[in-house]
Amino acid sequence: MKKILLASTSTVYGKPYLSYLFDELEQLYKNIDEVLFIPYARPGGISYEDYTAKAKTAFNEINKKLVGIHEFDKPKEAIQQAQAYFVGGGNTFVLLNTLYYNRVLDLLKENINSGKPYLGTSAGTVIVGKTIMNTNDMPIILPPSFKAMGIIPFNINAHYLDPNPDSTHMGETRETRIKEYLTFNSIPVIGLREGSWLQVNEDAISLKGNLSARFFEKGKDPIEITPNGIIHPVKY
Amino acid sequence: MKKILLASTSTVYGKPYLSYLFDELEQLYKNIDEVLFIPYARPGGISYEDYTAKAKTAFNEINKKLVGIHEFDKPKEAIQQAQAYFVGGGNTFVLLNTLYYNRVLDLLKENINSGKPYLGTSAGTVIVGKTIMNTNDMPIILPPSFKAMGIIPFNINAHYLDPNPDSTHMGETRETRIKEYLTFNSIPVIGLREGSWLQVNEDAISLKGNLSARFFEKGKDPIEITPNGIIHPVKY
Repeated sequence: MKKILLASTSTVYGKPYLSYLFDELEQLYKNIDEVLFIPYARPGGISYEDYTAKAKTAFNEINKKLVGIHEFDKPKEAIQQAQAYFVGGGNTFVLLNTLYYNRVLDLLKENINSGKPYLGTSAGTVIVGKTIMNTNDMPIILPPSFKAMGIIPFNINAHYLDPNPDSTHMGETRETRIKEYLTFNSIPVIGLREGSWLQVNEDAISLKGNLSARFFEKGKDPIEITPNGIIHPVKY
Repeated sequence: MKKILLASTSTVYGKPYLSYLFDELEQLYKNIDEVLFIPYARPGGISYEDYTAKAKTAFNEINKKLVGIHEFDKPKEAIQQAQAYFVGGGNTFVLLNTLYYNRVLDLLKENINSGKPYLGTSAGTVIVGKTIMNTNDMPIILPPSFKAMGIIPFNINAHYLDPNPDSTHMGETRETRIKEYLTFNSIPVIGLREGSWLQVNEDAISLKGNLSARFFEKGKDPIEITPNGIIHPVKY
């Protein structure tokens, strides 16, 4: 029985880190004492220690202990013995590369598939999709592959942004970028707006939060998915 | 004697494709009859034929003949026999990957270094830097390397955008992304705003257009570079 929460962002505007998700996290981590934090995405190049300290502050609010994977001698053992996981945001290339480098990507996937609760935010959400090809991040390191865990059957674009009709900027909109991706690739993409999250229970995937999400499939017009409904398995 | 023009964007808001650069292009391609167009970046997945037709329309305005590299049987021969080049924008990963795949990246570099005029816009500009690690594009294909031509001694961030102080979006600003890059890498980066271009004559690199550019070096505060001055060799 999978228990997965995939948030577009860790932080919504004007609120403390993770606080908009506290009620959900109480449910996700029910009966869990200690959560393993994987700080590999290092937003802004922050150290593992500082990033873990930040995450601990939020987890204190829901009375859960958090330990950083870097506090263990062997990352594989940390993954194996953990009760539950949280993978925070930052740079998706750095995150995926470090998971490959430490040879823990498959092991993490197995443990999530076997039912250990998982929270992802931003980059930590993207790596649960099939590939990281819809990240917004800069490619500041070359991972051996863009293949991610593939626990859900599509890719995720986090922090999805609608086109700004007043913009004079000539760089591509997010929608244009995702459509460009679909001319070269066939895995569908969900654009998850800030404040939205996906909840995965076994193989049912639901969209949560107050906003709709934008779903892109090759050769079709994008559609808006309504919150609080099961979005998979449905259309494909 | 290098003759290179590297534009942040092909198109400025409200004006036809390339038109803001026509005076510059007359100079760049002086005494050149025919320019080789490399449409590999395929913006929005456009075909090579359609992209070349679009570029031809602009080149007609300056009375230059344009031929697409895909019109030749062998890309290497097309590069070798060309008098001058234009590499248009689109997806930087797709562009670099295709240059590697067709084994023409080094040959193009040699020909540019030996003095054949080169115009790059957006992705076509980024590949003249040391690596493509500061592209804004989605990683929709995995190239064998992020290493680019390295004709200039830094990386380029095209379509550089200043932070919007009114934004409530929690995704990283361009400056945050570039600073994050510099915690993992040491090659400097120039953020080139739309409407700016770099002019390379031999080893002197000048910033052109009406706007300043933002220059990022590891361990230093970013600086604003004033237009119309030589920016390299100067500080490093």
